[in-house]
Amino acid sequence: MLNYQAPARDMEFLLFDLFQVQREWADVPAFQDIDPDLVRAVLSGAGKLAGEVLAPVNQAGDREGCRWTDGLVQAPTPFKPAYRQLAEGGWLGLSGNPAYGGQGMPKLLGCLVEEMFWGANTAFYLYGALTVGAAICLDAHGSEAQKALYLPKLYSGEWSAAMDLTEAQAGTDLGLLRTKAEPAADGSYRLTGTKIFITSGEHDLSENIVHLVIARVHGAPKGTKGISLFIVPKFIPDAAGRPGKRNGVASGAIEHKMGVIGSATNLMNYENAVGYRVGEENAGLACMFTMMNYERLAVGLQGLGAGELAYQQAAAYARERLQGRAPGGPQRPEAEADSLLVHPDVRRMLLTIRAYTEGGRAFAMLVGRSLDRAKYSGDKRCQALAELLTPIAKAFLSDKGFECAVLAQQVFGGHGYIKEWGMEQIVRDTRIAPIYEGTNGVQALDLVGRKVLRDGGAALRVFVQEMTVDEVPKEYEEPLRSAFDRLLGVTDWVVAQAPEDPNLPGAASTDYLELAGLTIYAWLWARMAQIAPDEPFGEAKRRTAAFFFAKLLPQTAALDHSIRAGSGAVMGMADELF
Amino acid sequence: MLNYQAPARDMEFLLFDLFQVQREWADVPAFQDIDPDLVRAVLSGAGKLAGEVLAPVNQAGDREGCRWTDGLVQAPTPFKPAYRQLAEGGWLGLSGNPAYGGQGMPKLLGCLVEEMFWGANTAFYLYGALTVGAAICLDAHGSEAQKALYLPKLYSGEWSAAMDLTEAQAGTDLGLLRTKAEPAADGSYRLTGTKIFITSGEHDLSENIVHLVIARVHGAPKGTKGISLFIVPKFIPDAAGRPGKRNGVASGAIEHKMGVIGSATNLMNYENAVGYRVGEENAGLACMFTMMNYERLAVGLQGLGAGELAYQQAAAYARERLQGRAPGGPQRPEAEADSLLVHPDVRRMLLTIRAYTEGGRAFAMLVGRSLDRAKYSGDKRCQALAELLTPIAKAFLSDKGFECAVLAQQVFGGHGYIKEWGMEQIVRDTRIAPIYEGTNGVQALDLVGRKVLRDGGAALRVFVQEMTVDEVPKEYEEPLRSAFDRLLGVTDWVVAQAPEDPNLPGAASTDYLELAGLTIYAWLWARMAQIAPDEPFGEAKRRTAAFFFAKLLPQTAALDHSIRAGSGAVMGMADELF
Repeated sequence: MLNYQAPARDMEFLLFDLFQVQREWADVPAFQDIDPDLVRAVLSGAGKLAGEVLAPVNQAGDREGCRWTDGLVQAPTPFKPAYRQLAEGGWLGLSGNPAYGGQGMPKLLGCLVEEMFWGANTAFYLYGALTVGAAICLDAHGSEAQKALYLPKLYSGEWSAAMDLTEAQAGTDLGLLRTKAEPAADGSYRLTGTKIFITSGEHDLSENIVHLVIARVHGAPKGTKGISLFIVPKFIPDAAGRPGKRNGVASGAIEHKMGVIGSATNLMNYENAVGYRVGEENAGLACMFTMMNYERLAVGLQGLGAGELAYQQAAAYARERLQGRAPGGPQRPEAEADSLLVHPDVRRMLLTIRAYTEGGRAFAMLVGRSLDRAKYSGDKRCQALAELLTPIAKAFLSDKGFECAVLAQQVFGGHGYIKEWGMEQIVRDTRIAPIYEGTNGVQALDLVGRKVLRDGGAALRVFVQEMTVDEVPKEYEEPLRSAFDRLLGVTDWVVAQAPEDPNLPGAASTDYLELAGLTIYAWLWARMAQIAPDEPFGEAKRRTAAFFFAKLLPQTAALDHSIRAGSGAVMGMADELF
Repeated sequence: MLNYQAPARDMEFLLFDLFQVQREWADVPAFQDIDPDLVRAVLSGAGKLAGEVLAPVNQAGDREGCRWTDGLVQAPTPFKPAYRQLAEGGWLGLSGNPAYGGQGMPKLLGCLVEEMFWGANTAFYLYGALTVGAAICLDAHGSEAQKALYLPKLYSGEWSAAMDLTEAQAGTDLGLLRTKAEPAADGSYRLTGTKIFITSGEHDLSENIVHLVIARVHGAPKGTKGISLFIVPKFIPDAAGRPGKRNGVASGAIEHKMGVIGSATNLMNYENAVGYRVGEENAGLACMFTMMNYERLAVGLQGLGAGELAYQQAAAYARERLQGRAPGGPQRPEAEADSLLVHPDVRRMLLTIRAYTEGGRAFAMLVGRSLDRAKYSGDKRCQALAELLTPIAKAFLSDKGFECAVLAQQVFGGHGYIKEWGMEQIVRDTRIAPIYEGTNGVQALDLVGRKVLRDGGAALRVFVQEMTVDEVPKEYEEPLRSAFDRLLGVTDWVVAQAPEDPNLPGAASTDYLELAGLTIYAWLWARMAQIAPDEPFGEAKRRTAAFFFAKLLPQTAALDHSIRAGSGAVMGMADELF
């Protein structure tokens, strides 16, 4: 059984000590009423839901899966009462707009709550995450009437949402999409086409499903400049805002997948489906990106939650499983064997997971804070920082989450490979995170191409200056300074080389993202070590920081070499030789 | 559909050009009749079986799985005719002892054949690999009568075999095993106990199953010094050597696993099962290790085969899938998009797989050659080299095989995650390789503790001297020399530190194995680049070598740092803080 307990102590440490939210929020009118007790109540409520309601149905969802019958899809049976509790607790509207029934909580707090839900039950929370993202998109780009109609229903979970982008020939390359939208006399549109891989596109957990669909209006320009965004509800709301007539949108099939088996992934058919445009015609991709950027951070949080879940199982197993003896002699001479914890290599695996997971939590909160600052202060530098960090959050958190899931599975030996213990499910469920919402390769290219090269590395340099080596333990000053220098040096090099070599950004991108992620984690670990309290919790922080600097940060040396090797090694081989 | 085509061109290049088998075998009486035509016939026959018989039932085996009914297990239906062809082709006796019906072929050739079978259908070939390993064990340790009875049946595949080691409380730590063996009046034994995770322990592909079981004879010393090895046949052979009375060994259940679903993994119960001792009482573990060492290389070959299979799918997909445009401008302006091959990051993934797979093939053959030399020349240095390389082969090949499977899945984007394309099956099937036959952590500890520290690094130093930088392209001389120096330097450091710090070997072990693997691959890539012919095949070799040196070898810098960080960062955290 996959037990999950929300890491409340760490979350409070990060909120109150590292990010000092009391001070952070004091200046923001919207957040002034959020006192520590409220924060703790939110964390505790979410933790209870995650640990006592969502986690217990995680493996059952994987076993039962979804059922497709004549265009209707049943989610796993035990997901239904769990979804009701998620919805009724108001969790989907936690960071939502208070003008429409949302609770207006900071993203800095919201990302911790989301991490818990992902960690407790990834397949389940996919039904929630799409809903939250669609609400953010509609709040930003919907008309007043659209917001008034849809947002309260989405925040309350009565209605859920899906993001309908991909088509068979248009995956990463959305410019190739073919779904058509014809204007109707009443100002609405009629959509026709087929999309694939639509998460939560059809299921029976909510009374209505709000599809956000991208399509091409007749006569639109080719490519991404001819894409418009539409609301296509499963049931068309009647005058009273209740689900009315069934719309021409239906699931043609569900996918059989490696993992997140409790999440329904649909092929969606639109036949003259009624759609309501969101934003301007042909400006749909920019609107959709509001949702995609949210989902990108959310997918990072999925990886993070998986790492935490995996760690909890592996640490418990390592403590309890007796096998072999400590290298320096028996630690429990009275028992037949010592625990797995005496083996340095088992500790290496556990500490790697800890270092990436706790470092990743601090990093996700950094992104959450920059989103809050951008939203509530309108500071353009904060917006630039959020944009810079989003691809790193999506890719680095999901890559490391998968790596951690695999390591935790490894701690279990053969027991990690059989279904009973659930470790293999964590690996299967987490494997999707580096793939969807833009593959991690696409994130890396976004980072280097759009976020670093476009401003000549300016936003990155500002961020590195903000990190600083002040207020970190003495022993980490030098390695941290070297890590910053390395990142800046590589950045300068890439900025200088790119104009001459169009293939360089892509050739360097994955290494560069990894280098940036490790450097940011190093700073966060140094800061956490500096302020960690004098108690066992703080001791564990300091030990994990030491592990990160000794065993993980050195990877940056290799990445530096690999990036500076340039594009020749990658591009030199002729296509026909592959 | 997972298509598999044996990489015959590469295999011939490695055999005839890199390892110069004509010269290698000329000195070995047993191999003198093996001419190039025979080698090509073997490769071609195995390749046909792999590509046309085993690969086509790979996904079907995953879908159907195994069925347990009242102690009997049915393998996937389409595995039955395939197994018959494997057996009737004599493939299980390829490197077997000619005195008992084996074909006496070199391991250097045999490992290529095995790679093909693993690559084409991993779950299926598990039925074969255990049989081959058991035959090697019996050939080395069985009595004359045992060899005469069992080897011909195993080589012909009429009977198959299983290796019954693990018990619930005794995984890595075999000293904890409890299965009992009581001597009977006729010189045989009666075994009682339960084992878990027994691959091919029960199935319906062969007319008999030969279990090699480790157990404790009454009164035996505790721990690993009290372990004896027994043959426990499913059906006790009658006087004519035909399967007779049903023995007291039966499957109590099969496991539900992440992958290799077509392979039956059994819980085995022994109730007064008749067993025949192999070798001396209490010397069973050493005998078993003959099989385990074979299986360790075999599991490495599993990883290697998976990398090849994954590469073939991903390269084909990348060629055919049109998505996005080349960074430098459209390559196919007439089409809606360019192929995935124009994207540097996709090439990075494909080249990484190629570099690890083709480098891994050369490495596996190096191990095969050292096994042949040890066996046929009796040269102790060759034996030491084979022992040094075995844990690297098991762990590095299986880790890289899994990494390659994941990368290839990533090339497919969302299509990699759904069952239809089969990529997710490769990942699931390959994930077991780093776990079983001694986890890769155990291999790393074996390498550092038993193979390097025990002789003070002597065997490793001899091997590094043999690698040399002679006869490699000029541009790789310096990086290669640095890589050797780095490996030797780290080895000296570990040898010097270990006596003071019992935790150091374990803390350094995984990094050390990785460092050794990368260094050996660097040498092999340099050699391959040097002798690659002037034709497209050779051009691809040289390009892949360049990629390896530019993008993968730099990882050794990070490993060096991480190893020299010592054991403090790993051991410092108190048990209760995990």
